[in-house]
This record gives sequence, C-alpha cells and structure tokens, in this order.
Amino acid sequence: MNRRNMLKLTSASALAALASGQAAGEESTKRSVSQYDIFEIALAGPSGGNPFLEIRLSATFSLQHRTITVDGFYDGNGSYKIRFMPDAMGEWRYTTTSNASVLNGQSGEFTCTSPQASNHGPVSVRHGHHFGYADGTPYFPFGTTCYAWIHQGESYEEQTLATLRQAPFNKIRMCVFPKSYEYNHNEPEFYLFPRTAEATRENPTGANDYSRFDPAFFTHFEHRLGQLRDLNIEADLILFHPYDRWGYAAMAPDVDERYVRYVVARLSAYRNVWWSLANEFDLMKAKTTQDFDRLLRLVQQCDPYQHLRSIHYSKVMYDYASPAVTHASLQSYDFASAPSWLKIWNKPIVYDEVMYEGDLPRRWGNLSGEEMTRRFWLGIVAGCYVTHGETYLNAGGSENEDDKIWWSNGGKLSGTSPARIGFLRKLLEETTDIGLEASPDPYYLNAVSSARDPQGFEAKLPPSAILYYFDLHQPIQYTVPLGAATYRAELIDPWQMTITPIAGSFSGNATLKLSGRPFQAIRFRRT
Amino acid sequence: MNRRNMLKLTSASALAALASGQAAGEESTKRSVSQYDIFEIALAGPSGGNPFLEIRLSATFSLQHRTITVDGFYDGNGSYKIRFMPDAMGEWRYTTTSNASVLNGQSGEFTCTSPQASNHGPVSVRHGHHFGYADGTPYFPFGTTCYAWIHQGESYEEQTLATLRQAPFNKIRMCVFPKSYEYNHNEPEFYLFPRTAEATRENPTGANDYSRFDPAFFTHFEHRLGQLRDLNIEADLILFHPYDRWGYAAMAPDVDERYVRYVVARLSAYRNVWWSLANEFDLMKAKTTQDFDRLLRLVQQCDPYQHLRSIHYSKVMYDYASPAVTHASLQSYDFASAPSWLKIWNKPIVYDEVMYEGDLPRRWGNLSGEEMTRRFWLGIVAGCYVTHGETYLNAGGSENEDDKIWWSNGGKLSGTSPARIGFLRKLLEETTDIGLEASPDPYYLNAVSSARDPQGFEAKLPPSAILYYFDLHQPIQYTVPLGAATYRAELIDPWQMTITPIAGSFSGNATLKLSGRPFQAIRFRRT
Repeated sequence: MNRRNMLKLTSASALAALASGQAAGEESTKRSVSQYDIFEIALAGPSGGNPFLEIRLSATFSLQHRTITVDGFYDGNGSYKIRFMPDAMGEWRYTTTSNASVLNGQSGEFTCTSPQASNHGPVSVRHGHHFGYADGTPYFPFGTTCYAWIHQGESYEEQTLATLRQAPFNKIRMCVFPKSYEYNHNEPEFYLFPRTAEATRENPTGANDYSRFDPAFFTHFEHRLGQLRDLNIEADLILFHPYDRWGYAAMAPDVDERYVRYVVARLSAYRNVWWSLANEFDLMKAKTTQDFDRLLRLVQQCDPYQHLRSIHYSKVMYDYASPAVTHASLQSYDFASAPSWLKIWNKPIVYDEVMYEGDLPRRWGNLSGEEMTRRFWLGIVAGCYVTHGETYLNAGGSENEDDKIWWSNGGKLSGTSPARIGFLRKLLEETTDIGLEASPDPYYLNAVSSARDPQGFEAKLPPSAILYYFDLHQPIQYTVPLGAATYRAELIDPWQMTITPIAGSFSGNATLKLSGRPFQAIRFRRT
Repeated sequence: MNRRNMLKLTSASALAALASGQAAGEESTKRSVSQYDIFEIALAGPSGGNPFLEIRLSATFSLQHRTITVDGFYDGNGSYKIRFMPDAMGEWRYTTTSNASVLNGQSGEFTCTSPQASNHGPVSVRHGHHFGYADGTPYFPFGTTCYAWIHQGESYEEQTLATLRQAPFNKIRMCVFPKSYEYNHNEPEFYLFPRTAEATRENPTGANDYSRFDPAFFTHFEHRLGQLRDLNIEADLILFHPYDRWGYAAMAPDVDERYVRYVVARLSAYRNVWWSLANEFDLMKAKTTQDFDRLLRLVQQCDPYQHLRSIHYSKVMYDYASPAVTHASLQSYDFASAPSWLKIWNKPIVYDEVMYEGDLPRRWGNLSGEEMTRRFWLGIVAGCYVTHGETYLNAGGSENEDDKIWWSNGGKLSGTSPARIGFLRKLLEETTDIGLEASPDPYYLNAVSSARDPQGFEAKLPPSAILYYFDLHQPIQYTVPLGAATYRAELIDPWQMTITPIAGSFSGNATLKLSGRPFQAIRFRRT
C-alpha cells in the first residue's frame, strides 16, 4: 500500500470514529453524533461513466419542524457520501434524493448528543462587529497565515501542527490549491484534479482532467482540517488564488462552479471552516470582479451552515458592503479608517494582511516583531482584528528547511511577535465577552486610541472595560474621561507583557501618571 | 538706567559695530560694510505729532547700473533709520526721499567689502526643491521650534542661546508677538505697541496704542536676531499667530499692514531672516485666507531682498502653488505625498511641524526621540526637510524652569533626537552639495525610500550619491538597482550614529547583506 492509500485509510477511520458509529447501508443500532460534529452517510452507487458529472445526490435532515437539505458527493470507487453537522440535540431523521435509483430514498435517523467541552460549534458574526461560537462562547480571531502548509508533505505538515499546538493562534489562513510563488516552488503531493500530463519542458504546467476530482487530495485535506479543528483553530480556507502554475487560477466558469460545489459539499460539515473566496482576487487576471461576486453567491447558496464568508484583495478593495460577505478581510494597515468602515459595512473587520514579521527583501515581508505587535494593538483598539504572518529566511534564526517560510510553508516560528500576540489575546479575553468598540473619535483624547466593551451602549450604561493604547506617544501623564462609573486601572506593557495595577479607583476626568515610554497601554475595568 | 534702556544701549552698540562705522548725519571718512552685513543710515528728524503715521522715508541705493529702494523707519526720540544689506562688493551710493524736508535728499556713499568667512549671505531657493546661501554654500535646513523664546527675559534667553550654540540646528521658528497658550502664560517684558492699559480683572487683555510702535521692543528683538545670525541660525519669523490674549491676533487691516511694513523695514536687512507669515493661519478666526494672501503679497512687495516666504497651517493647507510663497511650510507627517507635492508646487518643502519629541499629555507633544529621528529621515529621503521641536515637562529630565518647555520658551534641551538630527545633518552635508531628490517612485524598491543627489538628472548622468532608508523594515538582504555607475556603500545606523563601510564596489542590480534590524540606512557614493 502506498502512502496515499494508507493516508486515505487512516483518515477514513478517523472520520468514522468522529461520527461515533460506522456508516453503513443498513444499520442495526441507532447511531449518534455530538452536536457540531459530523454525521456521515456512506452509500454504494454507480461507478461507471463519470459520476462527478452525472450523479446528483442530496439528503434532507429533519428535527421536529426543521428540515435542512445537504448535498452529497462522490468519493470514488463507487462510494457516495453525505456529511451533516447537526446544530441541535435531539432525534434527527434523513432521506436521500438522487437521480441514481440506488442512492434515492435512503432514510435513517440518528441521535444528536451534547458536545464535548472543547466543542463550541462554528463561529459566526455576533454583536455587529464581532464573532462568537454557536454555543455562546466568545471568539476573538487571532489568526496566522500558512498559505500552502498542507502541500508540504507529511513530516513538514506535522511540524506545522506541532508549532500551532504551542502558538497563540486560533485561526489560520490557508489555500486549497497549491501555491507557486517566491519562496514556494515545491510540487505538491496531492492534486485536486487527476493529472493527465506531468509538467515537462514543453508543457511546464502539466494538464488536469477538470471533469473529475481526486478523492485522495480531499482525504488528506480533511485529515488536516480535522487536526486543526481538534486544536480549536478555525480554517480560513482560500478557494482561489493567483499564485499558480498548474492552471487552477484560470479554469473555465463551469469548472470553477463544480469545484466550489464539491468543496462545499465535502467540507462544510467541518465546524471550523471559514470561506475566503480568494486571496488577492484583483491579481487573478483570468477572472472579473463579477466572477467573484457570482462565486461568492454560489458559496452562500450551497453552504447549509452559512459559514463565515469573505474575500481578500491586493490593491482594489472588494465591496464589503455586499450581503454575500459576512466580514471584511483587509490587506491594509490603515487603522485610522476602521471607524468609518465599521459604520459603513456594519460587519466585523479582520486586517488579514498587515505585512509580515520577517527579514525578506520584500516590502511586505520584513516587519520587526515590535511593529507586528504594534499593528495588532492598533487593530484591537480600532475595534477590529488582525492576522499574523512570519517571513524569516533561515538566516533569521529559524530552523525551517531551506527556502521554507512559515507564511507559505508552515514549519517553525522564530519571531518575537507571537508571544506578544498571545498576551494580547489573553488580555482581550479576560477584558470582555463581546469585543471592543473603537471610541467614537479615535483622537478625542488627542494622543491615544481606545476601545471599550460595548456593554450598555444601547442601555446607556458605562462600558465595563476600556483599553487605551498610546502607540508611539509617550506622555508622562494623561487625563481620561471615565464618566460617572468607577474603574480600577492597570498599566499594560505590550512588549514586556506585564500588567501592573495602579492603586486606587478612578472616575470622572481621571489623571494617571504614566511611564513616559512609548507603546504602553492602560486597561480600565469597572468595579 | 533701567534694564530696558541698558539693553537698548547695548544693542545699539552692537549694531554700530556691525556696520563697521558710526552712522552719523555728516561723515568725514567713507564708511565701509561687509557684503550681506547691515549698512545703517541714522538721521535726525521730526519728533512732534505721530511720526509713525505721518513721516515717510526711503533711500535708493545704487551700484553701477543697479538701484534698490529701501524703506526707512522711525526709531523714536526724533531718530530715523534706513538699513541696507548690500549683496555685492563695490562702491555704493544712496539718496534719501522723505515727506519731511530734513530727511529728504540726504546722500552718501560707502564701500561694500568682502564678507567674513562665516558670512554666506541670505538663504534662498536653489535647484527647485532645495536651498542655498547667496555665496553658493549649500544650506540644508535642520530647524527647531522655540516660538516665544525672545519673550522670556534676559537670563532665560541667554540660556536658550547657550543651548543653540551646542545644538545641531541652523534654523529656528520663532514668533514676533508673545504667545499665550498652554505651557506659555508669562507676560512679556517688551510690547510691540505702547500699552495704554495693563491687564486687569475687568480688562484681561489690557489695551494697545496701535498707532505707534515701541522701539525698545525692536531693539531687544534685533539684538536676539543678531545673536542668531552670529550662530549661523536662520530666523524663521512668524509674523502672526492665533495664541494671543493681548489683541495682536485681531488687529484692524490697516494696523496689520503698518505692522508688516514696519517689521520688514526694520528687520529685512538681517541676512538670516525668513518670513513665516503666520503660524496655524487657519486658526486665526478674525482673518480670512484672503487677508493672509494680501499680507503675503505685501511682504513680497516691501522686502527688497526677497527673503524666503511661507505660511504655516493647522488643518487647512495653504495653497503653496501661490507665487507669493517660496516654499511649503507643512504641518504634516505624510511623507508619502511629498513626491506629488514637489511636482505640483515645484518648491522646497519643509515639514515644519511633525509633532514634537516630549512627554506632554497632548497628541502633538509626546513623540519618542526615536520617532522624531525617524520622521527626519523620512523627510530627507522624500527630498524634503524637517523641523524639530521638544516638549518635555520637567519630569522628563530637563533642567528647565517650571512650566517652561523648549518648544515655546527655549531653555535647555533634554531629548535624544537632537544628536541624531545632527548626525543626519552632517551626513547629508557630506553626501551632497545640492540636496537629495526622492526616487521617482518611493516604493519602486518595495521596502525602502531612497533619495539621490540630483546631479546629472538633466544630463542623464548617474546620481553622485543615493541614500536608502529602510524605516521599520528589516530585510537581511536587499537588491538595489544602481545602473551602470560604480558606487561604494556604507551601512548607516541612524540611532547609533555609525557609518560602516561595506567592502567592495557595487553597480547594476547589487545585492547587499543587511543587519536584519529595522530603521537602518545605506549610503552609496559614486567612485
């Protein structure tokens, strides 16, 4: 058995275990699955012709008064599957529909049980500008970027997972397709479409059979997706990107659509999926903005769970006011515009590319750890979220292999910002259950940006917490308008990662002595 | 003799010494004056009525084919003066014109001799975006800001001069009028107009006799102006400003005009004068933009030497395309816009307010020394110039008196940026005789801003020097397009103030190893 098949088998077993019961044509005992886990139906069906093009399959799942229809998919070798993520406990029933009689009218039932303690369900938008898990647990995205990490081979991918296990990140931006770009030239192990010609000197991109998918690609992909889920890491899946030498960036519209439908059918039952329709869509010259609009609406139409959806640009900002996107995914470090964008879009904003910590000879890849840390703070006090990326070459002290960089390949982290990002994440999580809203005028205090827990905004209650960040300013004292409520205050050093309580309590126009050093912060919490 | 009169006498003696000969109604021997120094004619005339309003006096100075007409002024006590700064060596003749017969038709001659080695004449615009002294010596403005330093009393003012003697600054922004603003509430020793009522509780601003000037004010002012000149410091004189409690910000149009004419008549013979018509003109609510346009044209019309002229804004940028201004005087730290502004205005740009190094609880007054240093570098590699200011309260380590701050009062400097500004000034002076032009596209190299000596731009010759600044980027190597010429390279650390030669010579697309630390620079000089 070669590695591809072995891996496929391993992954299939894992999936079966997940569903807490063996999928089978006929069941003897009633199956059960945890809420927000994957219930999978496996059916044997036609293997002749081209089932990817010819066979349609779906199932309708019902719980009391609700019904949800979910597309199935062909998994090769005559095997068909339907995956479902139940969002409520209870006794679910299902019936299949297909143009293949053997797949049509199959029915069954299962019990959805309470989720494990670490399973909070999918993330969605909450409180206008923020996110939360389905079970009510707060979720503040502190993401990182490893575009092509699943295309690096077994040992390197396991190294990436080992790094993520220790890192502070709870979201990862990653591509479905392999990547061909500076610092990322390797050939992937798995291809999404069967290869009909390998790359040669005459045909440097090879060729693909766009009428079929290679299930082995997805089995491997789903294995990694499940590992991320088990680390409580949201997978911000990039469906299209311009960095390509295999033809994926310039497929025909019907192939694009079949690809989107197949990916959504296979992956959307994973609770940790986010859809990022494209990376730098405006650099994909074979597509128009209208193509992306259409494909975004297609994702919206196909995904029964309405996972988070966005699209990322290079220079031409997408229209994030569109109802097809749930949040903005910016390439920008213009935090001063955040308040107006939040007002116009009324959606969460994630600054998904603020340049990267590293030492590359590229404008976007050589920020210091201090500057990356600063950009995270500027994003948070603007009421937004920020995504990390690291681009140190080996000489920067990394133990990564030659020409491998965290941002594209994964591997190990060697930067100084992740620890500080972890500090900020923990600080935010203990400051608010909701998220922070930028103060109405970020310059109303002249020198600082601040954000506050929106609790009570509508009820005209004072904020429960206020976080000030002084950025490059270094006042030795500062007067803050706290209003009628009473607060305790702490000095925060974002780089030293210290929290120092200030004696006493504060209200009204409160003057605090500060260190006279730049890049400091203050947290107020209502007593 | 009180201190006012003593000071007046001292200053008068100094002036006389300057002109290398005693001014007198009748002369026995031919007087002489150095080029760019002040030749002063003193005449006795009417003292009755109000000579400030009633007597007109001017003189026409001739050298060979050239004639220059210069206004005189009444200096009180029946004394009239005409000051002239000859710009060429040789035998000058003059004749006075007045509506007072005793002052009319007075004539004489003097010899203009070669200047002392340290006297390079007035500064004017050169090479489009740059400045230079009249004798051809390069001049790159590295200014500081001490708005009200001449209104602080003898000992404090002498302390300021002692500080300037050791500091790296060759320009100072300073107000003619006293200042009333945060951190600057003292009553001045001298008033420009005679006081007709002191400030009282009922009349908190007092009152002025706007029909006369107080010569003692000017004698003191000219004393300080001469001391700055002797330190080779250009005096960027702010004629109007909004920070006022005495009435100077809201004078009638005829008073404004008389004030401008009198100041220009008295001061323009000082070679180190620059005219800054106003500070933050848009905050002066008693005046319109048209008032400033008119007053700028008046300065242009009255000043026989066409000293540098500009005007400074707070939020509403003045139209620096106007032919009435010789250069832009910005309140901004938007260095990315510099290339387009330079192209549109085709004038030098001085970023006169980029916020200040200090620790005040004000947005504009608490930059770190590092950030102030960074802003100087960003300005220089944008092909512009930057002005310093310091706003440390005493707790910042300054030995200044209570509530006195360098930026408004002068005194001592305690910041960390002046040494680095001095390093940059010296670096620039040894890099180019012209100034640096921003590279055509500041991002054409992706990570850096660079500027080059414009030598050869028109002749299509390669630049004689190129200065790269990496700002917050920290690449470990960088490839720079040097073209066909060959250069030697040095690594510059702007904060450590080190210059480290790199072995070898470079041309074409040259790749250099760098430190991987942010805020570094490279200088290339053609071999």
